[in-house]
Amino acid sequence: MPESGTANIGVVGLAVMGSNLARNLASREGNTVAVFNRSPERTQTLVTEHPEAGFVASEGYDEFVASLAKPRTAIIMVQAGTGTDAVISDLVQRFEPGDIIVDGGNANFHDTIRREADIKPTGIHFVGMGVSGGEEGALNGPSLMPGGAAESYETLGPILQTIAAVAPDGEPCVTHVGTDGAGHFVKMVHNGIEYADMQLIAEAYDLIRQGTGRSPAEIADVFAEWNTGELESYLIEITAEVLRQTDAATGRPLVDVILDEAGAKGTGAWTVQNALDLGVPTSGIAEAVFARSLSSKRGQREAAADLPGPSGEWKVDDADAFIEDVRRALYASKIIAYSQGFDEIVAGAEQFGWDIHKGDIAKIWRAGCIIRARFLNRIADAYAEDPSLVALVVAPYFRDAVAGAQESWRRIAAIAAQAGIPTPAFASSLAYYDGLRAERLPAALIQGQRDYFGAHTYQRVDQPGVFHTLWSGDRSEIETTPSSH
Amino acid sequence: MPESGTANIGVVGLAVMGSNLARNLASREGNTVAVFNRSPERTQTLVTEHPEAGFVASEGYDEFVASLAKPRTAIIMVQAGTGTDAVISDLVQRFEPGDIIVDGGNANFHDTIRREADIKPTGIHFVGMGVSGGEEGALNGPSLMPGGAAESYETLGPILQTIAAVAPDGEPCVTHVGTDGAGHFVKMVHNGIEYADMQLIAEAYDLIRQGTGRSPAEIADVFAEWNTGELESYLIEITAEVLRQTDAATGRPLVDVILDEAGAKGTGAWTVQNALDLGVPTSGIAEAVFARSLSSKRGQREAAADLPGPSGEWKVDDADAFIEDVRRALYASKIIAYSQGFDEIVAGAEQFGWDIHKGDIAKIWRAGCIIRARFLNRIADAYAEDPSLVALVVAPYFRDAVAGAQESWRRIAAIAAQAGIPTPAFASSLAYYDGLRAERLPAALIQGQRDYFGAHTYQRVDQPGVFHTLWSGDRSEIETTPSSH
Repeated sequence: MPESGTANIGVVGLAVMGSNLARNLASREGNTVAVFNRSPERTQTLVTEHPEAGFVASEGYDEFVASLAKPRTAIIMVQAGTGTDAVISDLVQRFEPGDIIVDGGNANFHDTIRREADIKPTGIHFVGMGVSGGEEGALNGPSLMPGGAAESYETLGPILQTIAAVAPDGEPCVTHVGTDGAGHFVKMVHNGIEYADMQLIAEAYDLIRQGTGRSPAEIADVFAEWNTGELESYLIEITAEVLRQTDAATGRPLVDVILDEAGAKGTGAWTVQNALDLGVPTSGIAEAVFARSLSSKRGQREAAADLPGPSGEWKVDDADAFIEDVRRALYASKIIAYSQGFDEIVAGAEQFGWDIHKGDIAKIWRAGCIIRARFLNRIADAYAEDPSLVALVVAPYFRDAVAGAQESWRRIAAIAAQAGIPTPAFASSLAYYDGLRAERLPAALIQGQRDYFGAHTYQRVDQPGVFHTLWSGDRSEIETTPSSH
Repeated sequence: MPESGTANIGVVGLAVMGSNLARNLASREGNTVAVFNRSPERTQTLVTEHPEAGFVASEGYDEFVASLAKPRTAIIMVQAGTGTDAVISDLVQRFEPGDIIVDGGNANFHDTIRREADIKPTGIHFVGMGVSGGEEGALNGPSLMPGGAAESYETLGPILQTIAAVAPDGEPCVTHVGTDGAGHFVKMVHNGIEYADMQLIAEAYDLIRQGTGRSPAEIADVFAEWNTGELESYLIEITAEVLRQTDAATGRPLVDVILDEAGAKGTGAWTVQNALDLGVPTSGIAEAVFARSLSSKRGQREAAADLPGPSGEWKVDDADAFIEDVRRALYASKIIAYSQGFDEIVAGAEQFGWDIHKGDIAKIWRAGCIIRARFLNRIADAYAEDPSLVALVVAPYFRDAVAGAQESWRRIAAIAAQAGIPTPAFASSLAYYDGLRAERLPAALIQGQRDYFGAHTYQRVDQPGVFHTLWSGDRSEIETTPSSH
């Protein structure tokens, strides 16, 4: 059995995210940080460049494990995938019951559930933890979403609280999200919302650019102004920064020099795939993911470049009024994106048995992570007022916000359709909103079609039971399953 | 080794689909059909009710297998899932190299790939086959999409050709789609397109109903009229039938009595999930799937029923012109849905190594299946003219069709947004179309944001290479990967 050391926390995997998280840990009072990387050069570089950190470095797993105080706690920061399983295996062989292994990579929550189940019989705690905020967040304060057994949080929580981002009200951006894969699930939805938020901002920019002819630098001013109001958020802030940037080589706005093909790392797609499994409409996130994949279909886009569309230059009459319409449309669409994302969290919690406090999730996203925004306070408030809220958009604050924005939202959707500006996320959010509030949906016709061609049956509005019309017979209706009356 | 019998084909699983397929087979010259069901009562009922079929009935697997002529060919028609594996196992134990097992259930194509790989070493052929057309199609002529080894089609093809639906030009609606899971993959995409088609029709109905105040029976006349033109299709035809139906109990239109919550069996969701894996934007199908799940969120819809929206009765001025706009919008949106679906087939073929002839797929969907339509001839023509067509929508015929429809399409999208009628699939299709043809997309801003917060890098429009701006440094640009020049 390996001996016990002095480090209260260890980090395995010292690429940028791991190094930064280790430095963050080491910078906080009371932490002694053990570090280990498969190739020792990287460990050596980190230790040499940051003597102030007082790292306890190791060149092998035995040494690393021996350097940790009990209960041992190690955070794995390697690229998600099979590499994670290998590191876990090496640690499990050396850890003892009560020790804690944290996976801080962007793991698929299904993998996290599997790993936790595999490890549980050993008595070692396995914690899948979402880490948001990128390299800068890892160094200076990320938003942390740990899952795993609640017991593990007694040891882990106090350490994570020292390194997490701090919200404006002083609360650290970390909470025990729920058991097994809950942390990685919530991180996945965070990323999905991030896709939607970015796409909505991109559409807003495109509309203003094309509708007013303003330059990227001028539009940067618009976003900077927006960032002083209800849209205040990190993504709005950096949008202004990106739009203001001039390309040194050409003197042109950088955004005009960047190839318009957006990449993706897969968590947006996961969010939609799991929403489909859960039966939750996350149309805004789906449109955002698809907009990225469409952008990178170079061959198709070249072949489609001369497809017919509105001709001639299109400009709005009143630029300021138009920009305010865009702002309101963006805010309303953003409310839908978050409402859909939280719906997925609620459905995931129910499906996988997690006791997730929605308000706490909104709170730990207020700082450190990419979607941090003033807006999240409103979400936390909404769930504080009504923990069983059936949808964010029906909470009084958001209902009022949409009421104030919806005329603008409709004008923008109509203008975009007429002018030929692609606004898939704006349009989808509005259609979702109108679907949700519709007294009757044409889904009744779809049920009629399904009953016609596949005898899939239907329910009636006026009595319980399951019915089928004998479409290829005398077209009378039969009850196919005994109703409850 | 079991003895050899007289039946050239067998069917295992005699629920409605299996019974109807068996009857279809038995009705064709030259076929002798062996039948078997786990519970013998069902076999007995089938044989008793259809003496004309001359079924060779068995009460056990040994007897069933012995009743088949060599090479033995058996079609499994049981509910997709673990039951399928059990039946396969029972057959594999008794079959010999060269025999053929066909799974005609709605299997997930990933399962089909796995099953084919498992069975291949035995020398027995495993064929996953998509069967479309519902109960009526199974009996009178389905569209058949067999995958598996090409060799198996030498035996199987001639039998399937006897029972398949026949297209207007006399061709049977069956072809060897490709190896292993290709058949079930293509059937999955068929179903995804079906979801989109049905949602588009539902939106068209809803717009006409709300915009003109016409009754369902009057709108049935509109659809019947549409069914004489370019929209001619089974789904348009049955829409008229459903809308014309009066509920006997209340005297009201049946569509107003059916509960407006649409069910789903999962293949639409699979289509979108696999499109996400393949990086293919199938936004129309996604919106259709999500529209169904939204419709069944009863609690949310009740809570959202009083959310603000356009007030007062909304009616268009010129009903006939409006209906013609809706028709054109429907046709253009339908072109997008099929274009996206065929994109997924192309991507799947590339990913999984299938030599799929797109034109042949369009041809075998012309009869027997739910999405059968005159329109599919145009798709077959487009691929015949240019087998490497990069997207259906850029083929000359479809380009012209959209050119003629797009002004109507834009008007309808704008009107729906302003009037508060949910048209997620119409709106999404138009946004996709405008995205595809856009000279520049705001994806460039998204790449800028991603580079800002995550150092995800970007490409430039004016030179090869991968670049990163030092956002938190002096904001100069560095090249992060050697470019090819």
